[in-house]
Amino acid sequence: MVNAVADIGLIGLAVMGQNLILNMNDNGFVVCAYNRTVSKVDSFLQNEAKGTNVVGAHSIEELCAKLKRPRKVMILVKAGSAVDSFIDQLLPFLEKGDIIIDGGNSHFPDTIRRCAALEKTGVLYVGSGVSGGEEGARTGPSLMPGGNPAAWPAIKPIFQAIAAKAPDGAPCCDWVGESGSGHYVKMVHNGIEYGDMQLICEVYHIMHVGLGLSSDAIADVFEEWNKGELDSYLIEITRDILRFKDTKGKPLVESIRDTAGQKGTGKWTGIDSLDRGIPVTLIGEAVYARCLSALKDERVRASKILSGPPKRKFTGDLKLFLDQLGQALYASKIVSYAQGFMLMRQAASDLNWHMNYAGIALMWRGGCIIRSAFLGKIREAYDNNQKLENLLFDSFFQEATEKAQDAWRSVVSQAVLMGIPTPALSTALNFYDGLRHEMLPANLLQAQRDYFGAHTYELLADPGKHVHTNWTGRGGNVSASNYDA
Amino acid sequence: MVNAVADIGLIGLAVMGQNLILNMNDNGFVVCAYNRTVSKVDSFLQNEAKGTNVVGAHSIEELCAKLKRPRKVMILVKAGSAVDSFIDQLLPFLEKGDIIIDGGNSHFPDTIRRCAALEKTGVLYVGSGVSGGEEGARTGPSLMPGGNPAAWPAIKPIFQAIAAKAPDGAPCCDWVGESGSGHYVKMVHNGIEYGDMQLICEVYHIMHVGLGLSSDAIADVFEEWNKGELDSYLIEITRDILRFKDTKGKPLVESIRDTAGQKGTGKWTGIDSLDRGIPVTLIGEAVYARCLSALKDERVRASKILSGPPKRKFTGDLKLFLDQLGQALYASKIVSYAQGFMLMRQAASDLNWHMNYAGIALMWRGGCIIRSAFLGKIREAYDNNQKLENLLFDSFFQEATEKAQDAWRSVVSQAVLMGIPTPALSTALNFYDGLRHEMLPANLLQAQRDYFGAHTYELLADPGKHVHTNWTGRGGNVSASNYDA
Repeated sequence: MVNAVADIGLIGLAVMGQNLILNMNDNGFVVCAYNRTVSKVDSFLQNEAKGTNVVGAHSIEELCAKLKRPRKVMILVKAGSAVDSFIDQLLPFLEKGDIIIDGGNSHFPDTIRRCAALEKTGVLYVGSGVSGGEEGARTGPSLMPGGNPAAWPAIKPIFQAIAAKAPDGAPCCDWVGESGSGHYVKMVHNGIEYGDMQLICEVYHIMHVGLGLSSDAIADVFEEWNKGELDSYLIEITRDILRFKDTKGKPLVESIRDTAGQKGTGKWTGIDSLDRGIPVTLIGEAVYARCLSALKDERVRASKILSGPPKRKFTGDLKLFLDQLGQALYASKIVSYAQGFMLMRQAASDLNWHMNYAGIALMWRGGCIIRSAFLGKIREAYDNNQKLENLLFDSFFQEATEKAQDAWRSVVSQAVLMGIPTPALSTALNFYDGLRHEMLPANLLQAQRDYFGAHTYELLADPGKHVHTNWTGRGGNVSASNYDA
Repeated sequence: MVNAVADIGLIGLAVMGQNLILNMNDNGFVVCAYNRTVSKVDSFLQNEAKGTNVVGAHSIEELCAKLKRPRKVMILVKAGSAVDSFIDQLLPFLEKGDIIIDGGNSHFPDTIRRCAALEKTGVLYVGSGVSGGEEGARTGPSLMPGGNPAAWPAIKPIFQAIAAKAPDGAPCCDWVGESGSGHYVKMVHNGIEYGDMQLICEVYHIMHVGLGLSSDAIADVFEEWNKGELDSYLIEITRDILRFKDTKGKPLVESIRDTAGQKGTGKWTGIDSLDRGIPVTLIGEAVYARCLSALKDERVRASKILSGPPKRKFTGDLKLFLDQLGQALYASKIVSYAQGFMLMRQAASDLNWHMNYAGIALMWRGGCIIRSAFLGKIREAYDNNQKLENLLFDSFFQEATEKAQDAWRSVVSQAVLMGIPTPALSTALNFYDGLRHEMLPANLLQAQRDYFGAHTYELLADPGKHVHTNWTGRGGNVSASNYDA
């Protein structure tokens, strides 16, 4: 008979899985490793895991037999049918109260479905966001577990031990909420990551093309920014990347092809935001920017056909402009996070999840790609007011955007005149200006819809009452019922 | 026995259905009308259809019995299960070669599914976009039929007779393509309509708030614009709307609540564009703008918390600025249509449809909400080059944007400084500037992805070959396989 020696099992020995196992081992947990191609188990034990307490299994049955009760199995495989397949393979060897954790990048509707399906079996299902890339997995990722709340006490010691720690020592892992909420929050995290990266690319583009700065000079700017309110992992690695030279001593970044993929969680966030009717414009533009980057051949042809403004050497005050650029980046980032939290609020409302927004900010505070000093401020904002309607209404962020707005307007308007695309910086400012307008021009839009489609409108003085006007004197007074435009 | 007297049957007697029937009747076709609530049939015959050749049916069986062969039945009901239900009810009374046409706003995946399902029965299925609102349905809509091509010869005489006519007399109806392509094109039409309306709202907002013009003065500007390259239905009705006074003599538009719905085809277009990876940014922003407009209460609160730039009276050259504004609107509109056609090209490629782009421009040329002189130019562009890669590459549109770009930049940058949100005008310009950049900053983005997630990148000099760099000297040389960020 096999001894139940392991605290947790892990299925899937790609880099992320390997590193999470070694991280758990470092924290004193015994992990049983399993992989579909079982030769990889032996190879892992003989190489990366040599000298550790990690044990291996050559079958799902053996894996489950080696686990202490309640059994905890974490699956780290490609999202999709492979997850369902492993759940099916595991269930015969599990019993009530055992726990399956999907640590992959599953789409949250799948997690909602799996969570509901397993509820009937008595096995507890958890979908956990895991962020931080391969290095984060090894040294401390951000973990965002959600699902069956009964699982949390059993996995909490392991998860909080291996998670990254915020500067105050708090683990970057807490219980997110019910059902698919862990993967939902991870999806929004990735969407925000798309946005942060796009914003950095835009300010890089302005400095590189608009100001004519070298990669090293731009690296110095990012280094400077990283000491202040923009302090973050992505700013830090951008500095390192810009300084990285190829074998000929040239900045490697300048030789990299400017085409980015977007078939992932950023796209899901954009689609989800449209579906829920929440204007998460910055992530939307960031996804579209990747789409446009991917059309490289078409852009090369366009560059020979379409003209821009005449090229002018920058003659302004460089130091002032760089300071304004940092402020524009900061204010845009605030808008992006405000939009992301708006989306999570709406999802929580739609799906009846109880989400702890301060906890989410804390989970993102360290370990993950978007980790930053800034997230500490978001945590404070939600600690101060758990029902905060909008991050921009928090006094810290209200003052930050107020202080930044002149610089922000200056940068965006100058980029427009220079012909440098800033879709994310621009949309953030447009959102800010839209949000603070009590009156937007949608009154005209409603009039148009009523004019051509009898869709009715409301009067400012009488909200809730839908009125139709016979604008033309023709066409009758019947309002539309089945026609949408 | 019932005589087969009718050329076509129509199910669904809401305003759109009634008006289409009367239109067919005017064109010499005998229509048999049916409605689920059959009392509506009698009411229609005794009122709106009195004195016409329209006949009625009180059951689906009677409806089918009254139709000449091949039977043609058009369904005009709320999209969704009602369509499936009527198809199921019709099939027992139809035979091979008979035709079912769904003229409602069905989502194209439903039409693809229905088309495939009916292919097995021998009944020919058509999904047709119908645009033009209630007035268009009565006097000549834009019709976009797609589906089983064998149906086209039988319905062509009716469809082209009742359709709107372009100024040159050509009917605004042609065969779109296979399967769900008719509803797909209608979806994109509606998305573009969202964009056109948003653009008009933004220039209205600039004139109203930024320039302080009265509704009547703004109406004069739209009237002027409607004489030139912006000549279009939406500009025309905007002029009429701005001049429309309430009972107290005040412009009615100023009393309308600025909250727009967006749960329709505009949203579908945005989602589809994200799904296909095509940067249809203007429609995306137009949908988001509606979302933001709907958050009226939150905006009212925000307007008291968030500050904008100091209000300044416009002191520039008004005539010049209004001219620039018209050019900005025109150039943005060109971008929006270019994006829409990019999306249709991608869908045609993904779904193996054969779409006639010149034909689509012609179908939109008259009858529908986005009808405009401008669409004649798009038709010409695709007539000149059926394989045109991008509308902006056509010499007419290339020259138009080149001519407009200074004005466009001036307007967007001034709106930014004035604090007036212009998400659609801005994103259009950003797209234009992005498209014409051979090199976008996605090189940095790819370096970031490789740095934190070992996602690999390509070199400019060696596209297709994916390389990983160990940027930190830590973390190994293994590239990622199952982690997406």
